[in-house]
Amino acid sequence: MSKISQTNLRIPGPTPVTPEILNEMSRFMINHRGDEFRSLIESVTARLKTIYQTNQDLYILTASGTGAMETAIVNTLSPGDSVLAITIGAFGDRFANIAETYGANVEILRSKLGEPADPDKVKAHLNSNPNIKAVLVTHNETSTGVTNDLKSIAKIVKDDFGKLLLVDGVSSVGSIPLETDSWKCDAVASASQKGWMAPPGLAFLSFSLEAWKANAYSNMPRFYFDLREYKKYMEIGQPPWTPNLSLFFALDKTLDLMLDEGVANIHTRHTETAQKFRDGVQELGLELLAKPECASDTITSVVLPEGIKVQEFLRLAKLDHNVEMAGGQQSLASKIFRIGHLGLVTDEEISQTLSAIKSSLEKLQ
Amino acid sequence: MSKISQTNLRIPGPTPVTPEILNEMSRFMINHRGDEFRSLIESVTARLKTIYQTNQDLYILTASGTGAMETAIVNTLSPGDSVLAITIGAFGDRFANIAETYGANVEILRSKLGEPADPDKVKAHLNSNPNIKAVLVTHNETSTGVTNDLKSIAKIVKDDFGKLLLVDGVSSVGSIPLETDSWKCDAVASASQKGWMAPPGLAFLSFSLEAWKANAYSNMPRFYFDLREYKKYMEIGQPPWTPNLSLFFALDKTLDLMLDEGVANIHTRHTETAQKFRDGVQELGLELLAKPECASDTITSVVLPEGIKVQEFLRLAKLDHNVEMAGGQQSLASKIFRIGHLGLVTDEEISQTLSAIKSSLEKLQ
Repeated sequence: MSKISQTNLRIPGPTPVTPEILNEMSRFMINHRGDEFRSLIESVTARLKTIYQTNQDLYILTASGTGAMETAIVNTLSPGDSVLAITIGAFGDRFANIAETYGANVEILRSKLGEPADPDKVKAHLNSNPNIKAVLVTHNETSTGVTNDLKSIAKIVKDDFGKLLLVDGVSSVGSIPLETDSWKCDAVASASQKGWMAPPGLAFLSFSLEAWKANAYSNMPRFYFDLREYKKYMEIGQPPWTPNLSLFFALDKTLDLMLDEGVANIHTRHTETAQKFRDGVQELGLELLAKPECASDTITSVVLPEGIKVQEFLRLAKLDHNVEMAGGQQSLASKIFRIGHLGLVTDEEISQTLSAIKSSLEKLQ
Repeated sequence: MSKISQTNLRIPGPTPVTPEILNEMSRFMINHRGDEFRSLIESVTARLKTIYQTNQDLYILTASGTGAMETAIVNTLSPGDSVLAITIGAFGDRFANIAETYGANVEILRSKLGEPADPDKVKAHLNSNPNIKAVLVTHNETSTGVTNDLKSIAKIVKDDFGKLLLVDGVSSVGSIPLETDSWKCDAVASASQKGWMAPPGLAFLSFSLEAWKANAYSNMPRFYFDLREYKKYMEIGQPPWTPNLSLFFALDKTLDLMLDEGVANIHTRHTETAQKFRDGVQELGLELLAKPECASDTITSVVLPEGIKVQEFLRLAKLDHNVEMAGGQQSLASKIFRIGHLGLVTDEEISQTLSAIKSSLEKLQ
């Protein structure tokens, strides 16, 4: 076991997990169809719902966030349904791809990379396309570090048009404000390795009464991700398939830590941490990809100076400083680098990251 | 963290995991798109393939065994394809259900619960139904504790008829003999919490060249479980979606232990352990559900004496003896109890289990 030092893991997830939480992963196995696990799944689900700010259903899947996105789609839609996919980057594209794969008729509303979706354009699109049944939207686009104005978009989708609203909240819920019920989001996906401070392997999906109404008419095929099975089994405090017990143990701990801190305080902490990164990067003379009004509080994208090769930069930061950041995706692959700051980030990790950026760029310039 | 004592977990998975292995779960997070993880996934995959006895492809999914069964089906078949599902219990039924859910035309060949499939009937069915494209079969039926004669069935399916052979090996591979390549199994599913001695959360699927040929024509919808993505990403030593890192760390350890012991020795150990359970149970005057020639070496089903309520029996064994066994499923729910003995089982655990059975039955009689 190589547990000597922890990388300053500044990718957009997995986030670093503290020894205190990792230690929970070494609890002994229990019967997932017994009383002890029933208490655990009920308590973990209840606490997730508190942080999701929902009183409706929420299910825990043994899968990655992509699995939860697929679950949202295949449990509410049918082949041939018209869907509006609002995409502002790679993960918005993925959400659209899943819907297309299962036979939805997907219309794309795309923003320039680095920019958020324009709520007025969403309104205009829904106005001129009354046959749209559902809207897919990324709350926080991990590939660009841009946060959409989900509250305004949700108001249009739900209050003005009454469409189904499926949200990729993978890198947002638990870190930045997302009020599932009061914004009327019908399904919100997230995953354990993001703001939840746990290792990857479990995904979460809230599912509203409206989503269940859509489910009654939905006939996309699903088995492993069939929420009817999850609903039926949750009545006896079980998941339909064998769950990842060790991650339930980890969440049992991290959710306590999160609720002790308080949801509002967690959001404030993420904003303050993000601001330190944004300020620090700009003090180095670097340009941020996203404008301040849409810059994500969980991921910061930085424009790479001319002539710097992203892979060399990332390699140096890791080798010389033990700081691991991410490159860009899609057409931004060689143009930006990304700093993840979800979950727990110490001041020391912030300054170490900024030093690593400064010194690695100097070496390469 | 409640790690005071470990339950003698004699359900058919999750199996008990030793502190040595659990300790691996507390390794620090790493970048799943970096060099360290590439080495890990390549090495874990290679060792899994050794135990699977395959030189063909094998993929690791963040899912339960059911997810791997779904992956086998949706990556090889198309809606309308005729499939023969050989079922001898609840998990055979599940395999058939998945295929039906995705639109296959499923014909069922069912055995009486507690009995294996008859290879001659498989032959007769394939003879009179030349349009069958694939055969689904459970190697070891967890719900009854019966092992099918997969070698003979595979010989018929592959050598006599050249059909695709998809195998649920969830509770068999790594514990009892299954020669993936020499028996010509096209896809074999398993999961980490079975004979692999690790917690639940990862599933495995071998995938033959014949399976890839079928994949070229397969159009069942799939996204999270799309093996083309897994294949593409595996070329750069990555999975397409964020993987369960902690379980890779655990497998890194358990696979070393397994290869140190040797595949043949592991099989012998499982046979010896199973024989001790079967002998011990019969010495208590109890009847086994399965005949000796098909009794599983990973799960033993015991016929409950007249008048004993299974839930009371299981509750007593747990409360008084810290032994957790399982009841029956389907129509066997109130008629049998099941003892899991996959992975590591100590002699002390065997005698503790037998004492628990004896004393709990005496109390209830």
